[in-house]
Amino acid sequence: MFQSFEVKARPDQGPPRLAQIRNQMKAAGLDGFVIPRADAHQGEYVAARDARLAWLTGFTGSAGFCVALQEQAGMFIDGRYRTQIKAQVADVYTPVHWPEVSMADWLRAQLPNGGRVGFDPWLHTVEQIAQATKALAGSGVELIQSANLVDAIWEDQPAPPMAPAKIHPVEFAGETHEAKRARLARTLTEAGEKAAVITLPDSICWLLNIRGADIERNPVVHGFAILHADGVVDLFSEPSKYEGLETHLGSEVRLHTPSAFLDVLEALDGPVRIDASTVPQLVADALGNASVSGQEPCALPKACKNSAEIEGAAQAHLRDGAAIVEMLYWLDAQEAGTLTESEVVTQLESIRRRDNGLQDISFETIAGTGPNGAIMHYRVTTETDSVLEDGHLIVLDSGGQYLDGTTDITRTIAIGTPPLEAAQAFTRVLAGMIAMSRLRWPRGLAGAHIEAIGRMPLWLAGQDFDHGLGHGVGAYLSVHEGPQRLSKVSMVPLEAGMILSNEPGYYREGAFGIRLENLLVVQKAAAIPGGDAHREMLEWRTLAFAPIDRRLVVADMLEPAAREWLNAYHAQVAENIGPRVTPQAKEWLDKATAPI
Amino acid sequence: MFQSFEVKARPDQGPPRLAQIRNQMKAAGLDGFVIPRADAHQGEYVAARDARLAWLTGFTGSAGFCVALQEQAGMFIDGRYRTQIKAQVADVYTPVHWPEVSMADWLRAQLPNGGRVGFDPWLHTVEQIAQATKALAGSGVELIQSANLVDAIWEDQPAPPMAPAKIHPVEFAGETHEAKRARLARTLTEAGEKAAVITLPDSICWLLNIRGADIERNPVVHGFAILHADGVVDLFSEPSKYEGLETHLGSEVRLHTPSAFLDVLEALDGPVRIDASTVPQLVADALGNASVSGQEPCALPKACKNSAEIEGAAQAHLRDGAAIVEMLYWLDAQEAGTLTESEVVTQLESIRRRDNGLQDISFETIAGTGPNGAIMHYRVTTETDSVLEDGHLIVLDSGGQYLDGTTDITRTIAIGTPPLEAAQAFTRVLAGMIAMSRLRWPRGLAGAHIEAIGRMPLWLAGQDFDHGLGHGVGAYLSVHEGPQRLSKVSMVPLEAGMILSNEPGYYREGAFGIRLENLLVVQKAAAIPGGDAHREMLEWRTLAFAPIDRRLVVADMLEPAAREWLNAYHAQVAENIGPRVTPQAKEWLDKATAPI
Repeated sequence: MFQSFEVKARPDQGPPRLAQIRNQMKAAGLDGFVIPRADAHQGEYVAARDARLAWLTGFTGSAGFCVALQEQAGMFIDGRYRTQIKAQVADVYTPVHWPEVSMADWLRAQLPNGGRVGFDPWLHTVEQIAQATKALAGSGVELIQSANLVDAIWEDQPAPPMAPAKIHPVEFAGETHEAKRARLARTLTEAGEKAAVITLPDSICWLLNIRGADIERNPVVHGFAILHADGVVDLFSEPSKYEGLETHLGSEVRLHTPSAFLDVLEALDGPVRIDASTVPQLVADALGNASVSGQEPCALPKACKNSAEIEGAAQAHLRDGAAIVEMLYWLDAQEAGTLTESEVVTQLESIRRRDNGLQDISFETIAGTGPNGAIMHYRVTTETDSVLEDGHLIVLDSGGQYLDGTTDITRTIAIGTPPLEAAQAFTRVLAGMIAMSRLRWPRGLAGAHIEAIGRMPLWLAGQDFDHGLGHGVGAYLSVHEGPQRLSKVSMVPLEAGMILSNEPGYYREGAFGIRLENLLVVQKAAAIPGGDAHREMLEWRTLAFAPIDRRLVVADMLEPAAREWLNAYHAQVAENIGPRVTPQAKEWLDKATAPI
Repeated sequence: MFQSFEVKARPDQGPPRLAQIRNQMKAAGLDGFVIPRADAHQGEYVAARDARLAWLTGFTGSAGFCVALQEQAGMFIDGRYRTQIKAQVADVYTPVHWPEVSMADWLRAQLPNGGRVGFDPWLHTVEQIAQATKALAGSGVELIQSANLVDAIWEDQPAPPMAPAKIHPVEFAGETHEAKRARLARTLTEAGEKAAVITLPDSICWLLNIRGADIERNPVVHGFAILHADGVVDLFSEPSKYEGLETHLGSEVRLHTPSAFLDVLEALDGPVRIDASTVPQLVADALGNASVSGQEPCALPKACKNSAEIEGAAQAHLRDGAAIVEMLYWLDAQEAGTLTESEVVTQLESIRRRDNGLQDISFETIAGTGPNGAIMHYRVTTETDSVLEDGHLIVLDSGGQYLDGTTDITRTIAIGTPPLEAAQAFTRVLAGMIAMSRLRWPRGLAGAHIEAIGRMPLWLAGQDFDHGLGHGVGAYLSVHEGPQRLSKVSMVPLEAGMILSNEPGYYREGAFGIRLENLLVVQKAAAIPGGDAHREMLEWRTLAFAPIDRRLVVADMLEPAAREWLNAYHAQVAENIGPRVTPQAKEWLDKATAPI
């Protein structure tokens, strides 16, 4: 389905729906009710049925929550959304600066001793409830498990998604689900655990080598699973989705209707591992004393891609790179002042879809020109759609879901002649991206330890950007995948096979935005003559190939080694992508990748 | 007192003393006894009386411990000391790779259920005992508080140090102790705490603007203190040390004999803050339920130097830099093959002592030539003393204690013509040092976030070094001072006024060592045109001025900005230090600091 530019927020619906929620609260004997963005699976995207926060308030951001009280309704949103919320949400909802102000702090200020605040225990993790409960200690305000009051008033709430599951062939997965289950089961046995609960759909899909279409842009099936220490999996997911997959799943994967999940949990003997940061409170309640806290069993194995997954990602990037090059060639041929952002988005998606391998785009394309480029999570709508003017930069951040891999790439393109200070900032962003790409580092370090390398050129000019340098990416799964990140808060050691984005940026509010992004995969570094023989080191292999806009590079700001990297990278782009594009695009590409 | 080159270890004494300890254990009904390196104050250096580990085993390293059992005696030492221990310790002591193997792991393997292991509760922190106790849970092995069995057999154990305390003038301290006590007392009041216990001598000296000489190289007085929420301090330290300081201390600092400490703790009303990572177990026992866990109250205020302390450090570095330049000039005039390491050390100390400001050297000088340079914590003795040969590098790491500041500086000097690969590694070390010196970074980041900047040039060549990039430094106090560090494990945000070393190195075992070190102070970064106006950024001011050996710089390996930094730094060295040295040294300095 092509990306739409519809204005999704309906601020006018907010006040009457809030009034209905308040009636529900009164009937249930509650003083408040919490409406989170998340569903029971805590993913970044939710199915239409689970978009309760947007339906109630109008807010379409991907993080945040609302706490409805009788007199107040707090909209807890982070710094990214402080502008957006004003346009999307009626003023019966009061923005609260979160996480600076926590829900508990706010509730202490708003509610008297004895206040009762309801929440749906499917939609909040064990960790969230534990933290809020601890922070409310002594306030007399209590969190109360409740039915979902939004579902109670949402008359035309969409049905749960029912997309069929598909086999993810071992050719792409690189390991059978039998082998994965056996491998993970051993880690349970070693830890003395009888089972582990898995509630993340991408973990279940990875483990069982299946994919689905229950959530837009994310090829996952909704479900819950229990992995037993003998390798058997109980899968709780709508059985009708699995027609034809019986042989693939085999007898060691037992399919159950989702409604059976809690009963089976209650009957389990412990210790059963749960990850408190992802598992719903209700799961912990059902397990009672049988639960022990631990790491989500699929998280790290899924993050460390095997050679089939890495080769798949490389192939997907070659096809995706060809689409990007066709797009950039096309864009370059357009006159400044003739094109809007939404036309760019549609053109790019059309080009990507020419390749039969594309299953879906991997997220809504960000195409922000001029001042819109400075909005980090911009999504063009009919209301904001802007013309690409002479002197603009346009940030184009997009990706595809392919059977062999997930892509995510950003290029920033000059429209006409942008100002020198934009080119200078672009060159610093590029210098940071190159410095990270060239890095090798001793094994054992995490994103927090090396992220500075990609920011230093901006820092030296008194500049910086307010997002992480990079995120993990799945193998035909989520475009944002943990646990590894290139971020100052990430202490997960980087390991061979992890795919991450390398995406420094710079944002001048009201003026322009810049972001450059390649996906990279961690690999063991080859020995260097004269290097320390005993030292295990890691390095990056670049997966993404598309030209960097040379018109925005102030060449003498780049140190010689960075210039060499850029020229060598461009030579690879020409070599890898040239044979995959039309002759006209190839001619353009050869110029676009000439040495500087 | 000049540094001595005596071989301090006495491995031959180890076996008979261990036999005596075992008799003591038997008499006390213990199966084991723990002998740590630390004293009750957990500093890096200990007084002669407290050098129990060295006396018992012969081991003179600055970290580690021994666990004596009847059949075995484990020497727990980290990677730095695996070579040294073989020379220093008789083989009745079995080296244990620590921290890879913990004391609890080892005790579980060595002792049966019911094993009783004694420890002196003055010499172990609350955190250490809690961790060991937790790790021993279920093993049946128990930790038992005991009198110190080493003291029981050490017939000529030195007396406690009795050096007089001195006033540290407010001209250098920058803040009266009345103001410091009031400022810290407010933080206790805000936290709802009635008092805090301080057991670190440098914290007590900082708080009360006093200095002493109870520990070699560290101008501190031994003592314990209780800071009350009204600003009053109870100081438990030998009263005879404080003759003539009555007016300075005033009536709000109440002096007690050290033996009164536990009784006063027992009588305190809580909550009383203790820092579990520094306070002896016995302090927590005396407080019982009155104790609450918190940060050492002086740690951060002491780390953030005020302008008088920073200006003092700058002045101390100018005088110290002049001594270093005289030394380098002298060294350069000697023929290869004519000089030994100990002669270098003595000459350097003689030159430093010409300046009347020197109170003491700040640590034992490291002077390692050729292969000895690759031993990171090398200290020359009569047994290891080596000749500076043609083709060597010599690592010279030294510092001074001055009334106005503490210095610590390392230079690596070419003797004759060293091999190209040494010069290449030197240039990478220099490039890392320069990259860190040039850095500016957003406020809020810690050492773990930026340390990579100083290592990257080595990493790119497949090289690295196995120590942190830098440590905090006191103001006429400890040369190693927390809590800030430039290390992958340090998550303490860097703040204006913190002094740190910037000391990358490279060590080729059996061949050569390289280290370069300047002290730097964190300051608010001046705004840069075009920089982000809203962003608070920090930068370094370099305190140390001494030439970098240009003969070891492979100029075309440095990027232009790094070369510019080096030339500008050398121009500052010539300008700042030139007027402070002899005419002959100045002539040499002008050449040594010429642009490359």
